[in-house]
Amino acid sequence: MTGKLFQDAHTIVQESIREVLPDSAVKNVLENTCFPKKVYVVAVGKAAWKMAAACEEVLKGQIEKGIVLTKYGHSEGDISRFEILEAGHPVPDENSVAGTQKILEMVSGLQEDDTLLFLLSGGGSALFEKPEEGLTLADIQEATELCLACGAHIEEINTLRKRLSAVKGGKFAKLCGKARILEIILSDVVGDRLDMIASGPACADTSTCADALRIVEKYNLPFRAEILSALQKETPDRIDNVEVHVTGSVSEFSRAAAKTAKSLGYTPYIVSTSVDCEARELGKYMASVARTITQEPDCAFHKPCAVICGGETVVTLKGKGKGGRNQEIALSAALGIEGRKNLVIFSVSSDGTDGPTDAAGGIVDGDTVGLLRSKGLEPEKMLAENDSYRALQQSGGLLLTGATGTNVNDITVLLIE
Amino acid sequence: MTGKLFQDAHTIVQESIREVLPDSAVKNVLENTCFPKKVYVVAVGKAAWKMAAACEEVLKGQIEKGIVLTKYGHSEGDISRFEILEAGHPVPDENSVAGTQKILEMVSGLQEDDTLLFLLSGGGSALFEKPEEGLTLADIQEATELCLACGAHIEEINTLRKRLSAVKGGKFAKLCGKARILEIILSDVVGDRLDMIASGPACADTSTCADALRIVEKYNLPFRAEILSALQKETPDRIDNVEVHVTGSVSEFSRAAAKTAKSLGYTPYIVSTSVDCEARELGKYMASVARTITQEPDCAFHKPCAVICGGETVVTLKGKGKGGRNQEIALSAALGIEGRKNLVIFSVSSDGTDGPTDAAGGIVDGDTVGLLRSKGLEPEKMLAENDSYRALQQSGGLLLTGATGTNVNDITVLLIE
Repeated sequence: MTGKLFQDAHTIVQESIREVLPDSAVKNVLENTCFPKKVYVVAVGKAAWKMAAACEEVLKGQIEKGIVLTKYGHSEGDISRFEILEAGHPVPDENSVAGTQKILEMVSGLQEDDTLLFLLSGGGSALFEKPEEGLTLADIQEATELCLACGAHIEEINTLRKRLSAVKGGKFAKLCGKARILEIILSDVVGDRLDMIASGPACADTSTCADALRIVEKYNLPFRAEILSALQKETPDRIDNVEVHVTGSVSEFSRAAAKTAKSLGYTPYIVSTSVDCEARELGKYMASVARTITQEPDCAFHKPCAVICGGETVVTLKGKGKGGRNQEIALSAALGIEGRKNLVIFSVSSDGTDGPTDAAGGIVDGDTVGLLRSKGLEPEKMLAENDSYRALQQSGGLLLTGATGTNVNDITVLLIE
Repeated sequence: MTGKLFQDAHTIVQESIREVLPDSAVKNVLENTCFPKKVYVVAVGKAAWKMAAACEEVLKGQIEKGIVLTKYGHSEGDISRFEILEAGHPVPDENSVAGTQKILEMVSGLQEDDTLLFLLSGGGSALFEKPEEGLTLADIQEATELCLACGAHIEEINTLRKRLSAVKGGKFAKLCGKARILEIILSDVVGDRLDMIASGPACADTSTCADALRIVEKYNLPFRAEILSALQKETPDRIDNVEVHVTGSVSEFSRAAAKTAKSLGYTPYIVSTSVDCEARELGKYMASVARTITQEPDCAFHKPCAVICGGETVVTLKGKGKGGRNQEIALSAALGIEGRKNLVIFSVSSDGTDGPTDAAGGIVDGDTVGLLRSKGLEPEKMLAENDSYRALQQSGGLLLTGATGTNVNDITVLLIE
């Protein structure tokens, strides 16, 4: 595939992913902030090293001391004035607790007007953990497993877990005393509910002990006395010393795509930032929007434009092919725009890895299906077989970015001249 | 369900269906037209009687003579100066051929500057038929069945059928000589391709004999000599005496909804008029759009607004419940807007009959799911069982209009304050 639309699509993919990389996210916030006194840094999560490195690059000498707590194998060398720690993920281990303890020791010395930069990314829930008094990591693990087994919702599980941890549900913020906390969250939670991200170490808890006990009753959970006792301690319902910037979310990814599209001359329309339907059906839907823009004078979208949907679709596997949700969106869309001119539809994962493939996603146009047929391939069958990778490989429609170092879900874009 | 949003939804449903009724469709065109000389009327299809009656009401004494050719049981009495004929549908019978012959006799006497009003609605393909010289109805039927059995596309089948008929593929227009033809099409074909609607009796044919023979070869169709000979006669590739108004399409249905929504104070956004995805996935998608409008300042849609999608979704039946595509869209959407305020999502079929039920569709809001749960029902399970009718019945969300007398597919609308 070649031509202006194809080039523009590539530009949008590159620029919008660049905007949501951990370092851009951190730099965007810090470049507009002043710090009255000493700055301390706690970076927790899979992107902790990258976020800390970006922080050091912007603030340089201003940082007093920092700690990185990341997943094994996720740190990339020394950072000046930082201690670099690694621990277990997705299952927390003794190094999670030891690393968390080091962080608590550092923040216990914070003074009024000191600033704690708290850089949080995906995986923080497992990496940043200290059991409440009288409990062990094994207790937390066991309670979580009991909840999962009885079919509790993730919100219910989090209501309990916040109470079994000494650092979640806003408790970490309280342990920082009167210091000012500037929290930068690199989000991968669709919808961005703050207290859901790593169970909110610095976020006021909206749930209560009564809620927690109701959940125990509802599922008849056989917890031992120490756990039941922990569930009866209230979490902070108000926190005044924290300023939060959620960044690198799929909303930001969508807005970055809109910004780039606009700079290339397309009117951007963000239609959804919380898509969660079946991938192939989103593809069909986007194709129907493309047809409507072409045929319907009263359509809400006017050419040239970029219609943008962010979120995380699902793929119900039925076949044995190779692919990913974004590639499946693209192949499905191709069938709905066969023969149409002056448009492309592409879908891309921000982490550069769509399903178990080396592609970030796929791009298609009105010629994609014809091209596949001319090669003796049957695109409908390939879609039915979840064989989108091979189809896009054959039509020149694989989007390859390599691993990007961020993970803020996907965007699907219809670009039409 | 009560309240302003619910009332507004009902108003939109009623007004937009009224706009696409056969009589409104005909009146809208005729009220803006002048006729220099005599007016003759041919009304063919399931809505022929209603279209003819509306025509007579507007033009009254101006009509010289008219013929209605409709499905058995679809005429509702005499119309002044009209001959009312009924015939077979979906399988054409001898009365189809006899009725078509009467129409041809009438139009053979047309003079220059006479006007033929040609009113076409769904079912016209079977009702309006005359086999080409040397062929019988059975030949056409057999050829169609052979095509279907070998997996030919509908466009391929039509390419052949236009050549086996003496009145399709533009041939009827040629038989009207120099008279002016004003054609009003009440469309139920998503996408509105003119030559697909009843195989285009008054529409220039874009296919050629070469195309027809290529299809015979491709599927190795064992046609007898008379059929092969008919396939070698070209159809009219240019017609100059026809003015076409496509009306009552899903586009018009969507525009009518937009107009009513606007009059009620909502900014209307028509996003698609050719939706064809799985019903429950459209429901999920519309819910994600609702969440985005609420949360995302850069969303393309601004409150208060009506986001409108027209088309015809599909339902893949898995359970044994009762429902229809519009009810399934609504129930699925309800799960994605649980607990949200100031919005409703509704979906409705223009013919008033959604699936094998007495409802036209369904309407849901943020309380629907909670209401069902409070009654001990499990909305997720009911959706999995395709049991949307009972769910909506229990939540007060069935939309009941009764049979409307038109059929221009469905609209799904998100209304948000």
